[in-house]
This record gives sequence, structure tokens and C-alpha cells, in this order.
Amino acid sequence: MYVRKTRLLTPGPTPLLPEAIRAMAAADLHHRTKQFRDVYRGVIKDLHYFMGTQNGIALFASSGSGAMEAAVSNLFSPGEEVIVCAAGKFGERWEQITTAYGLRPVVVRKPYGEAVHPEDLETSLRRHPLAKGVFLQATETSTGISHDLQTMGPLVAETGAIMVVDAITGLGSSVIDIDGWGLDVVIGGSQKALMIPPGLSFCSVSARAASRFDTATCPNFYFNLRKHIEAGPRGDSPWTPASSLILGMGAVLRHIRGIGRERLIENAQLLARATRDAATELGLQLFAKNAIPAGAVTAIRAPEGLSSTQIVQAFKQGFGSVVANGQGSMKGRIFRLAHLGYFDFHDLFGTIAELEVILQSLGHEVELGRGVRAAQSVFVDARAASASGSQS
Amino acid sequence: MYVRKTRLLTPGPTPLLPEAIRAMAAADLHHRTKQFRDVYRGVIKDLHYFMGTQNGIALFASSGSGAMEAAVSNLFSPGEEVIVCAAGKFGERWEQITTAYGLRPVVVRKPYGEAVHPEDLETSLRRHPLAKGVFLQATETSTGISHDLQTMGPLVAETGAIMVVDAITGLGSSVIDIDGWGLDVVIGGSQKALMIPPGLSFCSVSARAASRFDTATCPNFYFNLRKHIEAGPRGDSPWTPASSLILGMGAVLRHIRGIGRERLIENAQLLARATRDAATELGLQLFAKNAIPAGAVTAIRAPEGLSSTQIVQAFKQGFGSVVANGQGSMKGRIFRLAHLGYFDFHDLFGTIAELEVILQSLGHEVELGRGVRAAQSVFVDARAASASGSQS
Repeated sequence: MYVRKTRLLTPGPTPLLPEAIRAMAAADLHHRTKQFRDVYRGVIKDLHYFMGTQNGIALFASSGSGAMEAAVSNLFSPGEEVIVCAAGKFGERWEQITTAYGLRPVVVRKPYGEAVHPEDLETSLRRHPLAKGVFLQATETSTGISHDLQTMGPLVAETGAIMVVDAITGLGSSVIDIDGWGLDVVIGGSQKALMIPPGLSFCSVSARAASRFDTATCPNFYFNLRKHIEAGPRGDSPWTPASSLILGMGAVLRHIRGIGRERLIENAQLLARATRDAATELGLQLFAKNAIPAGAVTAIRAPEGLSSTQIVQAFKQGFGSVVANGQGSMKGRIFRLAHLGYFDFHDLFGTIAELEVILQSLGHEVELGRGVRAAQSVFVDARAASASGSQS
Repeated sequence: MYVRKTRLLTPGPTPLLPEAIRAMAAADLHHRTKQFRDVYRGVIKDLHYFMGTQNGIALFASSGSGAMEAAVSNLFSPGEEVIVCAAGKFGERWEQITTAYGLRPVVVRKPYGEAVHPEDLETSLRRHPLAKGVFLQATETSTGISHDLQTMGPLVAETGAIMVVDAITGLGSSVIDIDGWGLDVVIGGSQKALMIPPGLSFCSVSARAASRFDTATCPNFYFNLRKHIEAGPRGDSPWTPASSLILGMGAVLRHIRGIGRERLIENAQLLARATRDAATELGLQLFAKNAIPAGAVTAIRAPEGLSSTQIVQAFKQGFGSVVANGQGSMKGRIFRLAHLGYFDFHDLFGTIAELEVILQSLGHEVELGRGVRAAQSVFVDARAASASGSQS
């Protein structure tokens, strides 16, 4: 027998920041008090910093799907044509939500592991000049690919459509210039780079999108964007806020201000790169194909003859590590290692070492330590680059 | 200087159960694991016990207003006529939600402090035989009155309307026989008798109500009732659950099973009675008029010449106690003391003693200790009755 600590290596929920755990424990605070309003106002202010936008921000007591629904129910009317870029399970969720509200989604679909490219979107926008919106993911968590928002945002901004980005795993793990790239609605969640449990979602809304509040006719109540955007800066919320999570989020956002949001993104990107190098060194194939790999999560194919379900189970049983399997039709075929939020190189070294032991015990030939060495090299190089950068 | 502990004496959020605080601290648990599914399944099962119903239960990551919206968006179609019983701020919320979804609410309105009586509802049902639903509160938190669900439920059950009850503060503080009285939808929230922070809501749905899932045409996605009701018993949720709060709720529901849900209700009712006796003994007027007073919360009028805002501030500044002011037009006129959840007689004795000191210092003549004595008498009598009951 040996000690096996349970560790979340999943792309949400992610490991909790200790300061946030302490803050959430002090949750016996009434939400209609000056003390709590000050916290809430600070959270809204710091969310602007974290997201890097001047746009209004709505914060909901819900998981991320709730903010996704808000973007649909507040900004569109039944019967309107919209473009959905679907490159995985979360892209499909945009199809479901837009359909539930009676919109007419035109789907630009890509196989799992690939991305919708700017040219694909450009073609669709040309074919559907009346489309009122474009929906996509910054990072498709189910496959580990990123979309090229920097190119796609301006394409949409030239049309009458508004750009709605599910950045639930993209925020804090990749550079997203909301205002510079014209991203009208950008959506995040608490249990991702924000290092606290699930239960809060939020989204930024551009003035261009907000101008639809008065004309969009889909019904909404709980997820009303205008009410939330107006109340937040006063420290208020239209309905009861999830106060313990708000306290935790306050602690995390102070932490992120302290280290700098660019550093948090670099951290994820670096861990992602080290993971890709280690996997390649171990003879494994990355799942992302013809696409920018995500900083949030890396999807790796199970080697020929092995199921990723075996690998995921061996992580749990052998080491207590919780690794994500593929979702939907990818279950058994890929496994996913996360990098967004409160992850460090120590976590990654241990994870890769576990993976090597697992692969060997499942009969896949691997030289123990070889993947770890690849990850270590990324760390050593990055530290050297950072040291020379700070000396210059 | 002296120590002033911050204490929530408000009708939500309420004081946290220590076991729940400990459970929530262990929140680094992934929600798609057997371990979490077992917890989730147990929570759904124990919610059936807590609510006392065989009906399906949906559990949402949202505050209570979300489950209220679910009842509207899943069971009704635009243009349908419904009856809303509005006897305070939360009754008015039913008007807002039904209007947001394009229903046609017929409002049976009562002044703050009064209840809608069964005869009022009977008249309205007769005048509006095509009404598809009746919406009301079990306990109107803004005024401290209860509705007579035992009489009203069967009245509605005889018609084509379904009965939708906001029991967010009613559950666990008053006897509600969901199945026996034919209450089709009954809604609760986490930060009330369930002793954890806000962020979870839930509702039971009768087969009669569920038969509308296929025909109701209001749109919904995040708050889809059928998906939530079907997933829960498997330990699943359609979207990411608010896992730390679920862990807390699991601990609370085990606690309630341990003491018995009837005991929890008796506790609130007894504290409410003791509060009414103490207030009356101090020459104060209760706000509830011609209505069953709520077990959840007692609303008390500020004495002639005093504002309840002064009283609420004096509680906070002098003692650290957080007492609820009136809401809306009642602000400054009433203050509200809560009894639902994790409150005991020690809390109440202290609160009444504080109130006496406050009233005296604000110039309202009161004999110190007189109100406390009235509350003590209720405790002593109840203990004697319980002892003789358990001996017989």
C-alpha cells in the first residue's frame, strides 16, 4: 500500500487555489451588505482586468452553459439565421441552444481534432449575408484545438453578425484580445483558469451586441444580460449571487492581478508545449490536426491497440490522478491533460512519469524518464529565456 | 471595545451547518467520477426525503429564481392565461417571469402583510376557467405570511391548471404535503432551511405537470426540467454541477435525515412562535395580518416614530447581527427575524436581548428581559411537552 493523493488533471474542474479555499470557508456573509457589495464590485472590476476588456460584464450563478444561453436569449430573435462553427462537443452545444430558441443555425462542421479555419468562416459569411451571429469556441475542450479568433473576429465585425465566443477554457490559457479583435460576447466559467469550483459563469458584451437588447425577442429572465451588466458595478446582482463562490473568485482574481494575467497564460502555454513534446517523445500522437493546439488542454491519442479508457483508469487506480477521457465518440480513443489555472511543472513532471509507467505496464514500449526529460527541457529553456529576458 | 461576531439572522442566506462547511472545503472533486455520482445520487434521494415527495426532482446550479423560471419555461406556452397570487415581493416576481415568457397573468393581489385566501383563489379560478396554471409562494419572505396550501392545492387540482409553489423559504420551515395536497411544482433553494450558501435551486414536478413537457412551447435550455429530472437519479447533471455546494448539500441532508425533517420544521415553528410572543410582550406589532404567520421568518413593525432602518443598523453596529429590513416599499417600516435552518433558541434569546437594548437606546420604553422571558417560556413549555410526549 502507498499514499495516492487524488489530483484533478482535468480541464475543469481544475485544482483549487488555497487562498480561494480559505475565502470560500468564510461564506457566512449576507449578499445585501456593504461588505459583500465591496467584494462583488471588486470581482467585476478584476474580471475586466482578467478578460482584458472595457465591455460590460454579466456574472451569473450558473455553470458555463447558462452564460451561453444568455448570449442566445438576449441578442437574437426566433427565425434568425446564425452561423455555428462546430468542431467538437461544445460546438454542438451551440447548435442545441440556438435550435432550442428557434434560431436557424447554419453549421460549419469539422471532424473532431480539426478546427474551423478563417477561410471556412469567410465562405459561410459570404453565403449567408443575413446571418445575425457567429457562434464558436475559443478553445474546443473536447479535442484540444484553438480557433484563430484574431483573424475570425475582424471578418465577422465587417458584417451585420455579432461574434459570440465560448472562451470557458480559453480565458486565462490563451491570448484573447476581446476589444482589439472585435469579439462581441466572450464567455467564461469559474472552474477553469479561475481555480475555484463550478457554479459561476460570466460574459463580456460589446456595445454593438448590447444595442440588440431592445429589439431581440427571444424570452429571458434569470439570464437577463442588461440587468446583470448594470447591477454589477454597483456591487449588486438581480438575483441572489452564489456568495461563497464569489468570495473564492475574489481571492483568485487578486492572485491573478498579483502574478499578471499574461503570466497565467504563459504558464498554461508552456505546460501545453511541454506536454506535447513529452507525448511526441514517447511515440504518442497528438489529436489536434491542422489546427492551433490549445493552451488549456492537450488531447493525446491512445497508442494503437490500447484504449484511452484503460489509460484513464490506470491513472486513477495506480496514482489517484483524475485524467479526462475523450467525450462522446472520442471516448476510448483519446485522453486529455489540462494546463489551465493552478497547474505547475511539478504537476506535469509527475503526470508524465505516471503516464510512462502506465504505458509500460499496458505493454506499450517506452523508455522510462524519456517523456519527463522532454518536459524538463522545456522548463529549463523557459527559465533561461526568462532569466536572460529579465537581465536585459 | 468588545467582540462582535457577525451573525446572519436573515431569511437567506442562513447560518451554515459546520459539517457542510467541512464538506465544501473538500471541493476538489471531479463531477464525472463514480465518487461524485454517488454523492449526487444521494443528494437527489435525500431531497425526496426532505421534500417528502415521490415526484421527480430537478436540481440546478442557480439561485432560486432560476428554478422559478424553469417552471414557467418548461410547462407553459406563450399566450396562455395563468393566475398569479401576489402578496409581496416574491409574488411580484411570478408576474415578471410569466410576463417575460409571454403568458397572460391574471393577478390576485393583496397588500403587503396579508395573504391570498382560498376563497380569493376559488373566485379567480371560477372567473378564469381556462387558466393553465396558478403561481404563488408557500411563505412570502418579504412579509412573513404563509399561504394555505392544504386548502388551495385541491382547489387547483380540480381544474386544468397546475399549481406552482415557490417554497424557497417554506420548505423545512412549514409542513408542505406535496403529494397529498396535489402541489404540482414545488421550488426550493440552498441558502434557506438547507443551511448552505446560495447557488443551488431545485423543484419537484408531478406527473401531471410533466405531461406538458412535450406540448409546452416556451423555449428553454439550461433550465430544462426533463433532462435534469432524468439525469439526477443516475448521479448525473446535464451541465456542470456546482460541485462544492452539492457536497455541502449532501452533508446537510444527512444531518436532516438524522434529526428528522419534522423536527427541523418544528424547530422553525417554535422559534417563530417564541419570536411573536417576545415581540408582542415588548409592545411591538406583528406585520402579518389576517394570515397564517410563516415559520420561516417573522416580520415586525418598527414602533411608532422609529424607522426599521435604524433598528437594523443598530443590530449591525452594536452587536454585529445582520437582521433583514423590509423590502421595497416596506423598507424602514418592518424588520424581519429568520428561523429556518440552522437557528436555535440560544440565537433567539440573544437576538431578543439585543432588540430590547436597541429599542431602549432609541427611546422606545421597554422593560429589559421581558421579551427574553416570553421566548424562554415557549422553550420551557416545549421542552416539557416533548418530555411528557416521549415518556407516554
